[in-house]
Amino acid sequence: MIKAGIVGGTGYTGTELLRLLAQHPDIILETITSRGEAGVPVADLFPNLRGHVDLIFEDPATAPLARCDVAFFATPNGIAMQQARALLDAGVRVIDLAADFRIQDISVWEKWYGMSHACPELVAEAAYGLPEMYREKIRGARLVANPGCYPTAVQLGFLPLLEEGLISPDALIADSKSGVSGAGRKASVSTLFSEAADNFRAYAVAGHRHGPEISESLERAVGKPVGLTFIPHLLPQIRGMHATLYARLNQDVAEAELQQLFTRRYASEYFVDVMPLGALPETRSVRGGNFCRLAVYRPLGGDTVVVLSVIDNLMKGAAGQAVQNMNLMFGLPEPTGLQHIPLLP
Amino acid sequence: MIKAGIVGGTGYTGTELLRLLAQHPDIILETITSRGEAGVPVADLFPNLRGHVDLIFEDPATAPLARCDVAFFATPNGIAMQQARALLDAGVRVIDLAADFRIQDISVWEKWYGMSHACPELVAEAAYGLPEMYREKIRGARLVANPGCYPTAVQLGFLPLLEEGLISPDALIADSKSGVSGAGRKASVSTLFSEAADNFRAYAVAGHRHGPEISESLERAVGKPVGLTFIPHLLPQIRGMHATLYARLNQDVAEAELQQLFTRRYASEYFVDVMPLGALPETRSVRGGNFCRLAVYRPLGGDTVVVLSVIDNLMKGAAGQAVQNMNLMFGLPEPTGLQHIPLLP
Amino acid sequence: MIKAGIVGGTGYTGTELLRLLAQHPDIILETITSRGEAGVPVADLFPNLRGHVDLIFEDPATAPLARCDVAFFATPNGIAMQQARALLDAGVRVIDLAADFRIQDISVWEKWYGMSHACPELVAEAAYGLPEMYREKIRGARLVANPGCYPTAVQLGFLPLLEEGLISPDALIADSKSGVSGAGRKASVSTLFSEAADNFRAYAVAGHRHGPEISESLERAVGKPVGLTFIPHLLPQIRGMHATLYARLNQDVAEAELQQLFTRRYASEYFVDVMPLGALPETRSVRGGNFCRLAVYRPLGGDTVVVLSVIDNLMKGAAGQAVQNMNLMFGLPEPTGLQHIPLLP
Amino acid sequence: MIKAGIVGGTGYTGTELLRLLAQHPDIILETITSRGEAGVPVADLFPNLRGHVDLIFEDPATAPLARCDVAFFATPNGIAMQQARALLDAGVRVIDLAADFRIQDISVWEKWYGMSHACPELVAEAAYGLPEMYREKIRGARLVANPGCYPTAVQLGFLPLLEEGLISPDALIADSKSGVSGAGRKASVSTLFSEAADNFRAYAVAGHRHGPEISESLERAVGKPVGLTFIPHLLPQIRGMHATLYARLNQDVAEAELQQLFTRRYASEYFVDVMPLGALPETRSVRGGNFCRLAVYRPLGGDTVVVLSVIDNLMKGAAGQAVQNMNLMFGLPEPTGLQHIPLLP
Repeated sequence: MIKAGIVGGTGYTGTELLRLLAQHPDIILETITSRGEAGVPVADLFPNLRGHVDLIFEDPATAPLARCDVAFFATPNGIAMQQARALLDAGVRVIDLAADFRIQDISVWEKWYGMSHACPELVAEAAYGLPEMYREKIRGARLVANPGCYPTAVQLGFLPLLEEGLISPDALIADSKSGVSGAGRKASVSTLFSEAADNFRAYAVAGHRHGPEISESLERAVGKPVGLTFIPHLLPQIRGMHATLYARLNQDVAEAELQQLFTRRYASEYFVDVMPLGALPETRSVRGGNFCRLAVYRPLGGDTVVVLSVIDNLMKGAAGQAVQNMNLMFGLPEPTGLQHIPLLP
Repeated sequence: MIKAGIVGGTGYTGTELLRLLAQHPDIILETITSRGEAGVPVADLFPNLRGHVDLIFEDPATAPLARCDVAFFATPNGIAMQQARALLDAGVRVIDLAADFRIQDISVWEKWYGMSHACPELVAEAAYGLPEMYREKIRGARLVANPGCYPTAVQLGFLPLLEEGLISPDALIADSKSGVSGAGRKASVSTLFSEAADNFRAYAVAGHRHGPEISESLERAVGKPVGLTFIPHLLPQIRGMHATLYARLNQDVAEAELQQLFTRRYASEYFVDVMPLGALPETRSVRGGNFCRLAVYRPLGGDTVVVLSVIDNLMKGAAGQAVQNMNLMFGLPEPTGLQHIPLLP
Repeated sequence: MIKAGIVGGTGYTGTELLRLLAQHPDIILETITSRGEAGVPVADLFPNLRGHVDLIFEDPATAPLARCDVAFFATPNGIAMQQARALLDAGVRVIDLAADFRIQDISVWEKWYGMSHACPELVAEAAYGLPEMYREKIRGARLVANPGCYPTAVQLGFLPLLEEGLISPDALIADSKSGVSGAGRKASVSTLFSEAADNFRAYAVAGHRHGPEISESLERAVGKPVGLTFIPHLLPQIRGMHATLYARLNQDVAEAELQQLFTRRYASEYFVDVMPLGALPETRSVRGGNFCRLAVYRPLGGDTVVVLSVIDNLMKGAAGQAVQNMNLMFGLPEPTGLQHIPLLP
Repeated sequence: MIKAGIVGGTGYTGTELLRLLAQHPDIILETITSRGEAGVPVADLFPNLRGHVDLIFEDPATAPLARCDVAFFATPNGIAMQQARALLDAGVRVIDLAADFRIQDISVWEKWYGMSHACPELVAEAAYGLPEMYREKIRGARLVANPGCYPTAVQLGFLPLLEEGLISPDALIADSKSGVSGAGRKASVSTLFSEAADNFRAYAVAGHRHGPEISESLERAVGKPVGLTFIPHLLPQIRGMHATLYARLNQDVAEAELQQLFTRRYASEYFVDVMPLGALPETRSVRGGNFCRLAVYRPLGGDTVVVLSVIDNLMKGAAGQAVQNMNLMFGLPEPTGLQHIPLLP
């Protein structure tokens, strides 16, 4: 059995990790920390866990994290980079669900996140935890940077096209829409029910942190500069992310061939579902599950290719992918503890 | 033209007052105050008002409230009672949309609101602003306590039955449901979209401040002690309030007679709509309008009478009723500036 | 392994049964029928099942139902009563998720359902499938009438009080609220998104079929006539049911004693969670899980007792309870295949 | 006073027309027709109109349409083209809210709408009712084709850029999102609450009828072929449409200049609001109002320009625009009866 700890468990990725790990057959939940809620039973905050999780939030200063085999950071940006070194030295593997280790170019990271990086050398070591792109590196990693939700949905959609060189990499467009849970569980006016319900809007149009994360990883994967226009939007729903991706074909490829390309690329990927030609992935089809569903189109036979990509932002976009990475790191079959059928309706 | 000021205009009742007053034919919007947003154009916070309202939030210390004919307090509880005296002395009429003047029994008020009252003598003077019950007193008032949203929906439903003495006043039940906007526009975890959407729950079951407000006003109206069990619930929708009222008939009255009683009671009330027998009032039928729609039932001919009552909690439950009171106080026809047809769908 | 068939699988209870049975460790999904969709892969209708269920809808006339060990009827009312006899004769156990066998009094059933009953003798044989009330009878049954969603939430809430004789059974009130999925997956104007979203209303106030079902079962359980006012409402959310129950105490019992009573009554019930004093059950805490969470109150120390009861109408209110009944009928541990942690947020 | 009739008034554009026309100062509502609901009071179907509209649905065969000054067709596609000729001959002006007269190229229309056109000569005569593009033609028109909702939001966003020749017209992308009310008020499974709530998906990705409508009108306006990729999506909200538009700049233009261009272009348009640099139009800011709000961006200084455009699909996208057109046709000030402040929250 693998002993797991969660650092900062009062947010939505934390509680989603609890939901997954509590029923993972190879996991013992050892500790979960929270500065603000230390001493409070986890199930008092998250009543869905009553009867399933009887942990009590522990103060991070005294929690037995060093005794764990793996520590998940479900903390705000900037925390994991302070604490990862000590845990790694103690032999604990680390999976950071925040952004501290996602971008290799430290200057880019520091510009977008507005702070100095505390341990650039660990960034260099960290594996970028998108298994469908970097599986081998993750398998051997002590430290995994769990990707952002948008980067997961966007990269899985563009990847087959870029790998085959079928599209111009310099003019990608990712029109992306996320459920509100992506904004986390902190009190704020803009994500109040009365502000976000029955409403839709773009945000961070001038630039969003997930943009450089996507570009850097795609450039690494295909060895070419990538030009990306990435526009996120806020959906009036709790979970669910939909990326509508646009690119220019640089050669004439029939829609059916595009379909085959996608099918082939993801044939052995348990968590990526290439839907049949003409299908319309919907966010509810992955609600609560760790799947990414994709569809590819060439509308009206023009030279714009359109890819539709959906994930549950808290699952394949966060906690589910983190557990997928953990399974890889510990040599478990990748779907272990992650086979939840999505909840529909 | 009547010069109106709004104190504390950054919440939902404040912006709803702006929506109404900006197109009220007899009103000049003179000033709106906010400590936190002083200097900011109102339409920056509430983009629906762009092109309609060009006021700028003013510091309450310097805003020309004393120059107004009427001041609306859209502030948290405990503010109006500090400032009402000076305004009244300056000849400004005051309508408080918070709770400071709603309960005549000061000790009850202080117990439920957890503070000492700053001006009990003004409580005694204040008219309780439910026009369908206290029209004459409101007409002559300098100071009006605008009722709570729940008390409005509940009292209008019970009133005809209590006035006619058809029900036992000692065992009333008001199962009430409110949209989330009733909780206001302040950052808080429990009213985040991801907490309140796709969810339903009761709250304040052990006791809610609107309970004593309802009981006191009904007792005053019918001259008998009232026993009320009042359970509020939170609906996953922005606006709308539905009260399902239960009482025991103390005599045999046919459903059709109950219907006639309600119709007769509210025959001359522009804002109270007694729906036909068998109708089901829905909250969207009053969305954005100042109406209360009612239906009365005697299910299966038993001795329990059921009344359904819907209002828009921001309109008849707050800002709309405040403007209705203002119209009365200034001798205007009651529906002036309040004839918005509700938005459906 | 138990071979299971589903009759009429294109609705929400059908797809929810599939979600549960596809991962139930003791079940082989043998067949699922649909007249209208025969020949269509189940996962084409319900894309959440892609990769988990590869059944194809079969014509009911030719589907191998008689080969199953158990058949679930997820059909409209009036179908199971036509087909149950033949299946039982073939040795297939039957669980009807519709209403055909829920009410013992045939004349009452025929009045409320507007049709003649096709096999009254099977009604007499059928066990009413609320395990927390009728576990022993269910264990030995060939035919189980799965209760309605409202009856499940309401009975579990009133039961401890009635069993102990603490309340007057002749004046119960059940103010009940259901998510829209309870209305099923048939095209209809009144449950369109644009009609049901951002809206709340009561329905069937003059009388609802679940009323007599609740009364009859409670009377059978406590041996006394029950008088119930039952008012259902439609919530703007997909899943989730909340019953707010009101009754008059006929003796002075402290809230803490009521709490103990509930705790004791359900101490050994895996699926009933009596929450601590002062807790507020919320529907999302059971979303996708088979649990009923309860809280009991005596507001302001009055003689009205209030019970709050939440379930997921598609789980404990339908498919989950059906699987719980199946587990009982086949001697499996009751929670087998039903331990899904509810999805929150 | 202008006598107005509505043909086919049981859908959402019909009821929205009623909401607007009932309080329009220059209008008398003469008749509203419905084959299915003839004899039923309008307010029985749409309770928000109780007390405001006392019309009764009339059979289209006998309704006094020929007596009207203007007839609005709120019918399915293919009806207006059957009836417009006779009304025009009787001197009635016609505004079609469906698609019959929107596309000048009859063969394109027949291909996308799957029927033969009944009166091509009227298509040639019809004015395309987007006042901000075709005001003069509308002023003199007997017959107006009210644009589709998507075409309104998309064209107003691209127009300034195309008119100035700043973007390549051959590679436009319109990622568009609509509230569910755009699908109308007919019973259908895919727009049930339980299907469309808490969910997001694209639709008609292979091609949507509004695509050729947009292209043809933009080509006519700028005299150049337009290549458009148009992807519509369904939002889990009732009203509101958001178009996110992407185009390639063909010269270096600073964001501030783009802003000035938009401001200048729409300076005298009452219903088009160019928001300040950096603003994020949200759909709720136009809920119930006839406004289009726009923002223009050049993200990260790249050569992709992004325009955000929001409207209420039932207002500026349908009924509101129809009334705007009527005002023009009858020489009234354009904002007459259309100054509703949007409802927020």
